[in-house]
Amino acid sequence: MGICQGPRERVAPDAFVRRQQGARTKCVRRYIGKDAATLLPMRVRILGSAAGGGFPQWNCTCPNCRTLRAGTFQGKPRTQAQVAISAGDGSWFLLGASPDLRAQIEATPELHPREGVRQSPIAGAVLANADVDHVLGLLLLRELQPLRLHSTESVRRILLEGNSMFGMLQRAPGQLTWTDFKPGTRFALLNAAGEDSGVGCCARSLGTHYPAYVSPPNQSELIAGEASLGLIVESPSGKRLAYMPAVPQVDDALVAEFESADVLMFDGTFWSDEELIRIQGGGATARQMGHVPVSSDEGSLSKLAQLRRPRKIYIHINNSNPMLNEAGPEYRLVRESGWEIAEDGWQFDL
Amino acid sequence: MGICQGPRERVAPDAFVRRQQGARTKCVRRYIGKDAATLLPMRVRILGSAAGGGFPQWNCTCPNCRTLRAGTFQGKPRTQAQVAISAGDGSWFLLGASPDLRAQIEATPELHPREGVRQSPIAGAVLANADVDHVLGLLLLRELQPLRLHSTESVRRILLEGNSMFGMLQRAPGQLTWTDFKPGTRFALLNAAGEDSGVGCCARSLGTHYPAYVSPPNQSELIAGEASLGLIVESPSGKRLAYMPAVPQVDDALVAEFESADVLMFDGTFWSDEELIRIQGGGATARQMGHVPVSSDEGSLSKLAQLRRPRKIYIHINNSNPMLNEAGPEYRLVRESGWEIAEDGWQFDL
Repeated sequence: MGICQGPRERVAPDAFVRRQQGARTKCVRRYIGKDAATLLPMRVRILGSAAGGGFPQWNCTCPNCRTLRAGTFQGKPRTQAQVAISAGDGSWFLLGASPDLRAQIEATPELHPREGVRQSPIAGAVLANADVDHVLGLLLLRELQPLRLHSTESVRRILLEGNSMFGMLQRAPGQLTWTDFKPGTRFALLNAAGEDSGVGCCARSLGTHYPAYVSPPNQSELIAGEASLGLIVESPSGKRLAYMPAVPQVDDALVAEFESADVLMFDGTFWSDEELIRIQGGGATARQMGHVPVSSDEGSLSKLAQLRRPRKIYIHINNSNPMLNEAGPEYRLVRESGWEIAEDGWQFDL
Repeated sequence: MGICQGPRERVAPDAFVRRQQGARTKCVRRYIGKDAATLLPMRVRILGSAAGGGFPQWNCTCPNCRTLRAGTFQGKPRTQAQVAISAGDGSWFLLGASPDLRAQIEATPELHPREGVRQSPIAGAVLANADVDHVLGLLLLRELQPLRLHSTESVRRILLEGNSMFGMLQRAPGQLTWTDFKPGTRFALLNAAGEDSGVGCCARSLGTHYPAYVSPPNQSELIAGEASLGLIVESPSGKRLAYMPAVPQVDDALVAEFESADVLMFDGTFWSDEELIRIQGGGATARQMGHVPVSSDEGSLSKLAQLRRPRKIYIHINNSNPMLNEAGPEYRLVRESGWEIAEDGWQFDL
């Protein structure tokens, strides 16, 4: 049993949850004891599916980027990885905050403001790490909008103590509420006012490497197990999404965790361990960068072949990954292995 | 005579300038002593024309944003203010680095990589201030691309000493070269290798307020006159662009400076001083935010009516500004007064 599969917190059966429908807001009773079918489903929307830099990447002339720009690539451009979750009440939570968030919000009518003068259906975000590509979008969510951020203490300290710009999120009282969580402990996604969305979350520690921009002395003050997390998001009816965009290695405990999920969004950054080295003529391997590759005997396609329960979706796909090419053998192999390759704009209910 | 109109630095007449043409790079002689007509023109491209947040803005339901999203607005969406300059040799310099830079680069074929594996025609950037909306895009220009940043010492310190994330631009030797300049002193735009583009620049001090994210103790260590600058960019043939996206007030010296320019891009953030207060029901005036409004007796339309020489273009236009509405009286008044309102994608040669 994975660490995120412990007994779920009980919610008082008479708890009221604020639910927003269209332009109106009302309180409805959430019947925790009732059949799951009576609960609103959790909606999952993929706003962006590429790894950091997006596809195409600004300074890259790899075969994928070059042919995409030339209009001859058989595949789709993608913005940087971003997933949004709604409990069905009209409010949304972001998993991370990508640098492409402004365009991603505009491309998604459900995330447009609906009422008042300054408003947003985005109630908050959950951070899995402090990577630039995972947090920079927070700085696009200014304009004094009340938000709640869920992160580990370590990630909060990196952003607030080491990067004064993030103080822009806390200029006014009540603007940003930052709630720390511990890996392995389930927490509820709350909006800025502290209201429970009905969606639960539990983070799993996956790596101990903090981003390169955090100096070694500062890293030594942080908790190693809070460096890089996967997120298990649980719908009001108990369905699970495992969001794992950066996984350095797959072990048996992780496989067991995934087997309890209904949907697995897994690290599709690199096809092979030496992908970037082959293209660039130097640099780091996929594993050195904290990403198990898709292919090879020790790759995710092989290591996760035994999974039976979850729908399996690769996400966080680097511009260099040949499986982006829908005319290529890598794409065909992935699809024939029962995996999907995420595209911007996909959504489903859990 | 403005402070940026002193004697121009001489460039040795036999200086060689690296010029890039298509996929080839060659050295051509730049004949400084020859007639200006023999020099390649400087190209100016407006990649983004909106103020911070863009148009529409993510959490705004002002009449402009609401009708734009509904498809009934008579006007154009705009990304956040960004100008790029080329001396005609194929390399480009950015004035600031907007948060929309990834999309702006992809929308501009001239800024796509052309050769090798990792390459970019973007040689560097000039920073006028440390506002989030003016510098965040630097963090999108990673991937070990050699770049040169020109800024004041104060802006460099804010970014590198107060925001560890910007260390990502300096991970490898030769990745980023940071060159300080002083307001009022002309400098040449250099690429990472130190080669002179032929384009000159001189910054004019316009304000003493640093961004709110810089703490008062840290602000006290910075030079007040380096807080907010306008840039006078000079083409190889001596033509001048005055780029002034944030001007707190217009005085006679500034008007004289503008009269020496061929093109003036001026602060079009707000139409009226109380624009945001009227829309939001509270907040700061335009002037308190460091922006002289367009309208009123003391506004820029009136104060700059006497300008004869430069082509006059409003840029950095806030989503709330009614002059964005091409069916409205404000738009008509601005156009009839001889001003243009910048749009994403415009370009011209100087």
